[in-house]
Amino acid sequence: MKRSKDGERGHECPGLSATAYGICISEVARVDASIASFCLVQSCLAMLCIAQLGSEAQDKYLPSLSKLHKVCAYAMTEPEYGSDASSLNTVARKVPGGWVLNGRKRWPGNSSFADVLVVLARNTSTNQVNGFIVDGGSPGLKISKIENKVSMRIVQNCDIELENVFVSDDDRLPGANSFQDLVNSLAFSRVMAAWVSIGIAVGVYDACQRYLGERKQFGVPLAAFQLNQEKLVRMLGNIQAMWLLGWRLSKLHSSSKMTIGQASLGKAWITKQARETVALGRELLGGNGIVTDFHVGKAFCDLETVYTYEGSYEVNALIVAREITGISSIRPTTSRL
Amino acid sequence: MKRSKDGERGHECPGLSATAYGICISEVARVDASIASFCLVQSCLAMLCIAQLGSEAQDKYLPSLSKLHKVCAYAMTEPEYGSDASSLNTVARKVPGGWVLNGRKRWPGNSSFADVLVVLARNTSTNQVNGFIVDGGSPGLKISKIENKVSMRIVQNCDIELENVFVSDDDRLPGANSFQDLVNSLAFSRVMAAWVSIGIAVGVYDACQRYLGERKQFGVPLAAFQLNQEKLVRMLGNIQAMWLLGWRLSKLHSSSKMTIGQASLGKAWITKQARETVALGRELLGGNGIVTDFHVGKAFCDLETVYTYEGSYEVNALIVAREITGISSIRPTTSRL
Amino acid sequence: MKRSKDGERGHECPGLSATAYGICISEVARVDASIASFCLVQSCLAMLCIAQLGSEAQDKYLPSLSKLHKVCAYAMTEPEYGSDASSLNTVARKVPGGWVLNGRKRWPGNSSFADVLVVLARNTSTNQVNGFIVDGGSPGLKISKIENKVSMRIVQNCDIELENVFVSDDDRLPGANSFQDLVNSLAFSRVMAAWVSIGIAVGVYDACQRYLGERKQFGVPLAAFQLNQEKLVRMLGNIQAMWLLGWRLSKLHSSSKMTIGQASLGKAWITKQARETVALGRELLGGNGIVTDFHVGKAFCDLETVYTYEGSYEVNALIVAREITGISSIRPTTSRL
Amino acid sequence: MKRSKDGERGHECPGLSATAYGICISEVARVDASIASFCLVQSCLAMLCIAQLGSEAQDKYLPSLSKLHKVCAYAMTEPEYGSDASSLNTVARKVPGGWVLNGRKRWPGNSSFADVLVVLARNTSTNQVNGFIVDGGSPGLKISKIENKVSMRIVQNCDIELENVFVSDDDRLPGANSFQDLVNSLAFSRVMAAWVSIGIAVGVYDACQRYLGERKQFGVPLAAFQLNQEKLVRMLGNIQAMWLLGWRLSKLHSSSKMTIGQASLGKAWITKQARETVALGRELLGGNGIVTDFHVGKAFCDLETVYTYEGSYEVNALIVAREITGISSIRPTTSRL
Repeated sequence: MKRSKDGERGHECPGLSATAYGICISEVARVDASIASFCLVQSCLAMLCIAQLGSEAQDKYLPSLSKLHKVCAYAMTEPEYGSDASSLNTVARKVPGGWVLNGRKRWPGNSSFADVLVVLARNTSTNQVNGFIVDGGSPGLKISKIENKVSMRIVQNCDIELENVFVSDDDRLPGANSFQDLVNSLAFSRVMAAWVSIGIAVGVYDACQRYLGERKQFGVPLAAFQLNQEKLVRMLGNIQAMWLLGWRLSKLHSSSKMTIGQASLGKAWITKQARETVALGRELLGGNGIVTDFHVGKAFCDLETVYTYEGSYEVNALIVAREITGISSIRPTTSRL
Repeated sequence: MKRSKDGERGHECPGLSATAYGICISEVARVDASIASFCLVQSCLAMLCIAQLGSEAQDKYLPSLSKLHKVCAYAMTEPEYGSDASSLNTVARKVPGGWVLNGRKRWPGNSSFADVLVVLARNTSTNQVNGFIVDGGSPGLKISKIENKVSMRIVQNCDIELENVFVSDDDRLPGANSFQDLVNSLAFSRVMAAWVSIGIAVGVYDACQRYLGERKQFGVPLAAFQLNQEKLVRMLGNIQAMWLLGWRLSKLHSSSKMTIGQASLGKAWITKQARETVALGRELLGGNGIVTDFHVGKAFCDLETVYTYEGSYEVNALIVAREITGISSIRPTTSRL
Repeated sequence: MKRSKDGERGHECPGLSATAYGICISEVARVDASIASFCLVQSCLAMLCIAQLGSEAQDKYLPSLSKLHKVCAYAMTEPEYGSDASSLNTVARKVPGGWVLNGRKRWPGNSSFADVLVVLARNTSTNQVNGFIVDGGSPGLKISKIENKVSMRIVQNCDIELENVFVSDDDRLPGANSFQDLVNSLAFSRVMAAWVSIGIAVGVYDACQRYLGERKQFGVPLAAFQLNQEKLVRMLGNIQAMWLLGWRLSKLHSSSKMTIGQASLGKAWITKQARETVALGRELLGGNGIVTDFHVGKAFCDLETVYTYEGSYEVNALIVAREITGISSIRPTTSRL
Repeated sequence: MKRSKDGERGHECPGLSATAYGICISEVARVDASIASFCLVQSCLAMLCIAQLGSEAQDKYLPSLSKLHKVCAYAMTEPEYGSDASSLNTVARKVPGGWVLNGRKRWPGNSSFADVLVVLARNTSTNQVNGFIVDGGSPGLKISKIENKVSMRIVQNCDIELENVFVSDDDRLPGANSFQDLVNSLAFSRVMAAWVSIGIAVGVYDACQRYLGERKQFGVPLAAFQLNQEKLVRMLGNIQAMWLLGWRLSKLHSSSKMTIGQASLGKAWITKQARETVALGRELLGGNGIVTDFHVGKAFCDLETVYTYEGSYEVNALIVAREITGISSIRPTTSRL
């Protein structure tokens, strides 16, 4: 890895610590989780991947991405390989002067308008996963926005087809020679995904506390009902705990002590608690919880994306279990009756 | 009450039993909860109210409504009176030949295109809630569709303003002389709301079972993972229990033995289990659970409406508690610090 | 199977239907789950096994067992084989005139004072599981009561050692030639275990409703607090649903339509809901919930046994899943790191 | 208050910070919650009360209590006043040279063998709650151990009758002139109660991780099953979060910034998560989860006490709600039907 020190400035990046970055992204998510996810993709997936696994020359991409003059995306997941991402089968074949990519991707956020995409593909010579920087306007690249989303509707996720897309030798990430090489940046983005869910939960709490104080039924504020009070308190307890776990995880990351399992534990546990929290909030809103006008209904839906992206709850839980038990049970074998 | 026998035919209605009606509406909800809710409003709220509390002459409205040549809506809830519906303050003032209605309503489904609306308003002489059949094209009636819904997006809920809306004497429901008179039809619609949530849960189960069998990860169907199996089984157990409770409740209703508390218990408990069930289903879908294409994401969102309409979980729970403890705790009194 | 008709009288048994038996056992469990479990072992495991898989001559055991002049036990589980019961390795070796049994059993209820034990052992010739009627006073049989139980403390579970225990040819169950032969009686006892948990839940509800009405804090009955009311209502909803599912399952069994998966679904789902129900009840009791005097604390602990016996929640869930997905995931294969 | 600085040494006490004390008590609870609760009563309730609200002369009690040469108890709760502790009605009447106490107490731990008891009683002149140091051998003091506990069976809770128990003027706590004066020490003991539940949860996790690695079924360790792995991971996530919240709360206390609401939030949320955690652990143990031999069954039962003492979950939640909403809903008013 080229560089890894937390908070190092350079390439016109602000050089925030993991904790500072987490708090920032949670504050954005407090207002809108889609915008926070845009940032997550831009900086914690695509830019981080270039910064960590790219060459010195490839650093040229970073300043314009940092200033949002350009937008980038990160294309790993495929229609048939979600949780089983390491089996992805988009292929990269060596040709004179570069590589030719073929395959399909699903879900990459920002990709309908991205200037550059970091694309993961399997090197046909080594059979290992490599990384490539693909220009958004490359011939052979067909990108179609996924419609009908019920969650994070502002994020433009796409179905992508790569048909003989050429990438020059200069745009292959020299540090990405196996799927394992990519795992570190995924661990960091898991921590940041956890912070997105913290922000969503805090935003819902804000809205609920205000709503319960203002809205009256039976002549008293909704805040006066025991059933509502207990829900608000449970939300607050969850949030305090989520926040502390996010903070601890960020500190571990900054001191280079965070294991993959710890990142997965934080992501899985925090998003699970966030889900309970926003469901409680949505209950508190009553009928007004099914329109976006009061914030909570939208946040309730948005959280579902965070619960799944950067590794579903289940996959992250099994990654943790592998670390604490020494036994992997992710791939089942079964008997058809 | 003019008539109450379950399954009685007449006015070109099919004369289904409560059980048969429940199963029908759940089968519709299995495919789309919005359409089921349209039916619920049309038949179990507005038509039922006319049939039970209307005059013989007012039966004229039923045949065209039964055949869906005309559409009706039911306007009870107000912007400031949701759970506290009995305090509604739309007013009806007696004038020669009829009544003049003033006030605001919120949420009535179907109302943007309804031919007739059953409107609940407080009689300024008696201070009691009465019911009126209002023509959808009445002068002074302003109906605006509620936008930005995240749930049951096909159902057109509206904000309604009544400004000196005239209703002739012929269109006042003679059987609706107090809020209590209206409670019976609400009990029935609660049972049917429970069936809507049963249908939603069954539809999600269908989709999940299919998806788990077809979708593979790590070389095996998703159905082969223990974590997924347990979720699917929990869903099935919930559904069996919900179904049996819905059936029992319908039988009690048909035999005129169902209490208000039983209807509330059924509605509250069934929709709560439905909520757990669709959340499990949404987990099973992974990333594909956030688009409507795979059905589950939409159903997950739709259920939120059912969880709240026809009385929120909390209000229904407190109604049950009042019946089983003899103590009402719905209206809190509190002390500001 | 020698006979299977539900409700058939004979051998001085009352000939109850599955539903009637279920209700009876739940009424006993409502007061004390240990006594209900004693009955379950006596009639639904040991006697049923003799009645279904025994010879006509072996019916001689039934009248005295039916009248409780004698007590019986059912010894299947072993120290190393709980969920994996079909792998049991107590062995039965053919000798002139009978069989010699060697091995260890764990948990059999009633066994410290049982007159006869039905013991499952692997026939060393066929390698199949067979069943034997063993006299409680047989030489070589060492039975020691399991101490330190926190749940169902009245039930005497034991650790059993069989050291060259002789069983005559007359006491081998002729219908028990494989583990599969025994599965049917296990399905029935699962249904009855579900009824035990229903009874426990009802007993807790009874105690809570009474307690909430009688106990005052802050000058009002505990029944007046919204938080307590919601819990009581949730308990009641659970119980109604559990009861209906138990009833339906019993009806299916009586009509010989119940599948193994249905029995497992009922057992798993009902005991899971029972567990939630008694936990709510225990919360309602406050400090008095940790002594047996108020019934709830004891019932809370007793339920834990039912949650696990007759197949743990997890094993039953996976049996259901096998039936509804066609894929068995009970035996995992794994990779040590 | 005489002194409050965290970690101040004196009177042969070790002078631990709140954090250090919390960790110590959790480590004890990891092994046995009863012993931890003994310590909690001794030091965080009775000794703390004497140290904070007693006179300089009364400090004489502390050294022997600190070294466990003597044992003390704290008698606040009464048979009719649990959650509503501030309404307690044991009375203290002024007589020449001292006070005469009359009334009944319920639950005080350690009291059957305590050398001294701190007793809260209502001063008949001021009608305010005062505190008294009562000798365990005082005439008129009848102490009977509460039998039939299912939780923390080692802790000796008692029913106490005070019949004209004389306390000299020297043994009235001069700083305890109202119930409010006592609230601070209760806040600290709430934090420590939270640490007890953390310790219980950690002890259960330890036992489960070991058990899952050692116990095999179907030929593989229980740790290899996905369903078991997810439970173990959920337990670990809960524990990390509980630990961090306990730590944060202790730090707030040490810096004198902790509010009453924060103490209640920590106690309520942490014990709630602990309860989920030990229930998961008990599931993992299967049949062996119902005997104390494998630790988990006992810890599962012990946790119930912590869930309720130092304020039930509900009372603590409503205390938090009062702080964050400005509205108290603890005392309901209700209408009998």
